[in-house]
Formats: sequence, structure tokens, C-alpha cells
Amino acid sequence: MSGRKELCTPLRTIMTPGPVEVDPRVLRVMSTPVVGQFDPAFTDIMNETMEMLRELFQTKNRWAYPIDGTSRAGIEAVLASVIEPGDDVLIPIYGRFGFLLTEIAERYEANVHTIECEWGTVFDPDEIIREMKKVKPKIVAMVHGETSTGRIHPLKAIGEACRARDVLFIVDAVATIGGCEVKVDEWNIDAAIGGTQKCLSVPSGMAPITYNERVADIIAARKKVERGIATQADKAKLSGNRPITSNYFDLSQLEDYWSERRLNHHTEATTMLYALREGVRLVLDEGLKARFERHQHHEAALIAGIKAMGLKLFGDESCKMPVVTCVQIPDGVDGESVRHMLLAQFGIEIASSFGPLAGKIWRIGTMGYSCRRENVLFVLAGLEAVLLRHGAVIEAGKALQAALDVYENAKSQTAI
Amino acid sequence: MSGRKELCTPLRTIMTPGPVEVDPRVLRVMSTPVVGQFDPAFTDIMNETMEMLRELFQTKNRWAYPIDGTSRAGIEAVLASVIEPGDDVLIPIYGRFGFLLTEIAERYEANVHTIECEWGTVFDPDEIIREMKKVKPKIVAMVHGETSTGRIHPLKAIGEACRARDVLFIVDAVATIGGCEVKVDEWNIDAAIGGTQKCLSVPSGMAPITYNERVADIIAARKKVERGIATQADKAKLSGNRPITSNYFDLSQLEDYWSERRLNHHTEATTMLYALREGVRLVLDEGLKARFERHQHHEAALIAGIKAMGLKLFGDESCKMPVVTCVQIPDGVDGESVRHMLLAQFGIEIASSFGPLAGKIWRIGTMGYSCRRENVLFVLAGLEAVLLRHGAVIEAGKALQAALDVYENAKSQTAI
Repeated sequence: MSGRKELCTPLRTIMTPGPVEVDPRVLRVMSTPVVGQFDPAFTDIMNETMEMLRELFQTKNRWAYPIDGTSRAGIEAVLASVIEPGDDVLIPIYGRFGFLLTEIAERYEANVHTIECEWGTVFDPDEIIREMKKVKPKIVAMVHGETSTGRIHPLKAIGEACRARDVLFIVDAVATIGGCEVKVDEWNIDAAIGGTQKCLSVPSGMAPITYNERVADIIAARKKVERGIATQADKAKLSGNRPITSNYFDLSQLEDYWSERRLNHHTEATTMLYALREGVRLVLDEGLKARFERHQHHEAALIAGIKAMGLKLFGDESCKMPVVTCVQIPDGVDGESVRHMLLAQFGIEIASSFGPLAGKIWRIGTMGYSCRRENVLFVLAGLEAVLLRHGAVIEAGKALQAALDVYENAKSQTAI
Repeated sequence: MSGRKELCTPLRTIMTPGPVEVDPRVLRVMSTPVVGQFDPAFTDIMNETMEMLRELFQTKNRWAYPIDGTSRAGIEAVLASVIEPGDDVLIPIYGRFGFLLTEIAERYEANVHTIECEWGTVFDPDEIIREMKKVKPKIVAMVHGETSTGRIHPLKAIGEACRARDVLFIVDAVATIGGCEVKVDEWNIDAAIGGTQKCLSVPSGMAPITYNERVADIIAARKKVERGIATQADKAKLSGNRPITSNYFDLSQLEDYWSERRLNHHTEATTMLYALREGVRLVLDEGLKARFERHQHHEAALIAGIKAMGLKLFGDESCKMPVVTCVQIPDGVDGESVRHMLLAQFGIEIASSFGPLAGKIWRIGTMGYSCRRENVLFVLAGLEAVLLRHGAVIEAGKALQAALDVYENAKSQTAI
């Protein structure tokens, strides 16, 4: 039985925009024996995680907890709980994950309005605000860091404009949380979704979300308690609003599970919660500011190496994501062949891209635990060697020197 | 910052109907470093897991893979992908989790028909078949093992009747898979959902499902590829059927991810998949028959002890779940006080129940790794001591003797 052998996996250097290498301290907590979901020892861990998530999202929101599913489960939980059929939703799209928001919003019968800009750029906030004035949406939903194109979107002006017009602002911060500033309260974000398998260096499988009272009010108006466990008081409270379609993603039920009421919904994913708690704890222990600076430092070394090799970056540099570097595949080089050789010979994984960028760029992530000196140096060394092996015309021997220059010139080198 | 301390959890003896103790070998694989989701090393693991799940579900179905979410995510994924608005769905209810099926089916706009029987009993299959003839549903959905009442439902006759009438038979086998026979093909089950955190002894957070071509055909007719990654050929294929509402639970998209096409959907929950693979591997290595017998053996010891103490079992014994034992709380005893003392003094967790059974019964699980000699003996010892402490009139000193009798009289003692 080929399927019955013990699990045996290779050790990779993962330099994609996720999933990335898991912090060894996170891996370690994942072998902790579990406790029951209503054990006080576990509900304490739930509360601690909520408290730490608030710090991570830089918010005072009451609601900050994970959805038990991958990042898109978090996105769907928020959209499915907020969108009622016929709601106008404006989605500015600047890469693949903008389309995902569209896809999900449409499925929940939103009246979706999109604007698109060229992949590799972001919008002038005024363009979004103008469209907002025209469409008068209930919700503006957009991606903060678009890994498909490696761009990060400024959100402050859009958040302000949304709040001034009483529009809900929902942000997919899956790729930025823990690696770049995500200031939920300061930027007037009403709901944000984070990812575990990127800058938090926790395995995929859980999606932390946060939302404020503006969102909580909408959810409360759609509240429904399961018949198997509803009390008479619950039944009396049922409003006329259309209930949320999904049971699993019904945030009104999840609130009853994550608050003092502790009403049984799902069985919390114990070990993933241990992992998330540890991942966020490590982020907060490092300090948000120090962590973001560390990410930028390694990005600088990577970029220096890439450019010294003679390769060109893709996209508008003014809105480059600090944790994803998109590199143009040189003419005449088969990008997939390079990726496969990097994996087969060096055990290094980098990413391709989607749609219009497929075959045109590689995407190199510098996220979380993967974002460290030896990984940056190794991916540069590997990429140079594999490109030479593919007959590409590049500068040999310069990439590592340029990256080492960045590292040796860093002032606070020991801290990073 | 109280939330910033290192994770520190007590070690519990978990004798609930889930989540139960995780097999130490499963915990160990959870500290394995991750690989990327399209790394051949990972797609091999995906394929191996599918192969092992087929054996676990005793099926030749092509489709057998996990949903990245807790058990009810698996249930919702199946129901949301199969149910179209207005579909007639018959749900025989004999406990809380039957109501969950109702709840989910209603949310997806099924025309739900229910029949109910007293909690603690199950239906005469003929009653369900009579109702099926009357309602002529598209789907019969029911729970195999109802942990809320500790009953297991015979499914063979119902599966045959469904197949003969071209009705789809969907079964929630969350609490039975890996602990009791679940014969998907032999019982004509069209779709089944398993749970990880019960008899598989894997943490909660993933839900293995399987379904046959009858279900796959319905899903295929509702297929939709995401705009961000759709090819022209995909767009041309779009049928007129109503697409599945949820993106996350859209099994047509999950098929593209779990098959050779490897179309990006979510990022597979790497570590949970490692855990599931290991959990199922351990079940198959033990052997299904041997494993089910082991569960029955410890159940026998537990029941002997409970009865020797002078306590009464709840419910119709002819349909008792072998992995859950429901015990009547003696008159005058505060069931919750007993549970709290068991946890606080002995570190033992047993469960209460829901709805009409709240305060009336305790539920003791003997599932997976929790189902072993020392745990059964400890829960009996603890329960006896705590009941004496609560002034209950029970027989002292007899429970452990009765359980030891069962263990010492077992023929193949060394194997169990």
C-alpha cells in the first residue's frame, strides 16, 4: 500500500508569497496535547488569542477572532454575513484577489460594481472615491496587499471617504497582516481579514478577522440561533431581516461561541488555534514596528541582488509590497523550467503568477519566518545559477555581493 | 500583558464524544515543517490521503478528500453543493445533529421535510421509507451516530430504498468514522461526511468527505470557474444551472484543486492534512475490524463499571452507539457540579447534553486514542469518587472490579 508509509517530507526553502515556512516555535506548539473546547483552560486561550489579535490588527474592536478555515473562508465569512441580496458593493480590482472578492460577493447576490486598473499598478484613491460617489455602494471591498501583482494599496484616504459617506469598508489583509502596517482603526476599516500562512508564519487553515460595531449591528439584525439549541427567548428575538445563508460562516453564531455565552457552534480547531496564538504572540514579542522593519530590510537585500544580477522588477515601484518582489522573466527564458530546476536542485520554491502575468513574472516572497538572511542569500544564489544554466544573459557573481553589502551596511545589524 | 505568556495547557483525560485526545503520533507529525501547496511532495501527500480516505470510507468513489474546516464545514459543503433552491429534502431527526442538517438545508432554500422520534431511540427504517414514498424527496439526509443521544442508526435498508427510488442519500458520519462500520458503497450512501476530532483522534479543523458519481454529476452541472483564473474553455462550458452559492464550499472548484488540474482554490491546510493523513494511516494500520472491536471492548468495560456502580444507562440499548455511553444523572445530583469536580480534581472531562437532555444525562465517549484501558478505569474511579462526594447513593468499590473483570476475561487481551 503506497499510501500507508510514514509521512516523510523534504525540507524546503520557501520563498513564495505563501504558504511560507512555519516558525519552529509555532510547529512546536502544534504537538501540544489538546483540551476540550469548553475546558476553562481552552476558553482562556480563546480569550487570550482575541486580545492578541486586537493588538495585531491595531484595533479596539470587541470582535477579533479566527474563522476555522483558510484565508478565503475568512473573506467569505465576512462578506456572507454582511452582504444582503441586492446590496451595492464596489470592488476596485488590481489583481487576482480582487476578482475573488467579486466572485464571492456575486454569489451572495450583491450588485457588484468593479473598476479595474492595470496589473502592476494601484488606484489613485480619488478615482475610487469618485466611483464611490457615483455608485453609492453599501460596501467598498478591496485587497490591501495583492500578491498576484506584488502591489500594496494605500487605504487611509479610502477609509476616510467611506466613513464620511457611511459606506462599509472591508479589507482583505491576508497577505499584509504581520508583515506590513494594517491599522484597522486609524484607517477606518470596518472589517479586515488576515491570513496565517503568510507573514504570520503559521500553517494555512485559520483566518483571523476583526470587525467593528457598524458591522456587528448588521450581523445582529440577521441573527438566528440553531433550532437544536435555541431557547424561547432566542426564538422571540428573531427579526425580519434575511438570515445569513451560510451556517458555518454565520458571524452572529460565531459571536455566541466566542463570547461569554459559549453557545456550541463548531468544535474549535484546537491545534490551529494553538498555532495562531503562538504565531501572533511571536509577532507581538518582536514588536510590530521592528517586524515591519525587518521585512523591509530583507526586501532591500533581495532587490539589490536581483538588480545586480541584471534582472528587472515588475510593476510600479511606488506601490511595491514590501513582502513580495515580482521579477520579470528575461526574454527567451522558460520561467516554469527555472522554477522547477530551483525546486529540484536547490529545494527552493518561488512562485509564478496568474492570468495576464502567467509566464511573465516570478514572485519571490519575503514573509515571516521565510524572511531571513540565509534564505535571501540562498534564493539569489540559486536563481543566478539556474538562470546561467538556462543560458540567460545575466551578471554572474554580483547578486550575493550586492545583498551582502546591504546586510553588512545595516546599522542595527545584530537586531536583524 | 497577560495574553503574551507562552502556551501552557493542562494534560486532560478527555472522555467526551469529541474532541478527544489526539494520538501522540498525530501530534508528532504536526510539528513537521511545511512544504508549498503545489510542491510535488505535497500533491503526493494529497493523493495518498485521498487513497487512504477511500479505504476508511469503504468506497471506490473517485472523490474522497477533506474540507478545510471543522466537521460542520464538511456537512455544509456537501449540502450547499447538492441542494438547489426548492429541492425536497427529507431529514429524519433523532437528536441535535439532525436539527443541524435541517438548519443548513433550510439556509440553502431546500423544502425541508422532517420526521422526529423520541431522543434516545432511532427510527424503524420502514417509517423513513414510508415517509420517503409520501414526500418523494430528492435527498434523504441523516445522522449515522447521534452523539447528543448516543444512538447509532442502521442505514442499509434506507440506502437501498433511496437507490431504488433514485433519491440521494447523504449521511453525517462525523461521530462514527474510524470507530464503527461506515460502509459507504455497501449501504448505498451517495455522500458521507466524517469528523477528525472523534474516532480518528486528529484535532478538529478538517472534515473528510466522499461522494459518488450521482453527486458529482449534480455538482458538475453547477460548475463555475473563478473569473481571475478561468480560461476561455471554462467560460464556454458554463451551464444554465444555478451555481453553488458558497465559493469556499463549492465542491466543483474543490474537485479542480484535488485532481490533476490542480487549479488554485484555497491554500490547503498543510499541517492539518499531515495530521489527517497520519490519523487515517494509523486507523488502517490497526485495521478497521480490529479497531471497531477495540472500541466495543472498552465500551463493554465502561458499561460494566457504570452498571456495577448502580447507575442507569440512558436510551434504547439496541441502538446504542458503541463509542458514546449516555448515563442518567441520579435524582438529586447536580450533573454540572459533578462534571466540574471531575475536571477540577481529576482532570477528567465528560460531557453534558443538549435540549431536552440537558441536565438529565452525562455522555461518556470512548473514541480513538481516548478509548483505552487506563482512561476507562480512571473515569470510572473518578466518577464514583465524585458521586460519593455529592452524596449520591451508589455502590462503592464495584465499578473498577466490574471493568477489570471485562479486561481480564478478554481472550485477545494482549492485542487490545
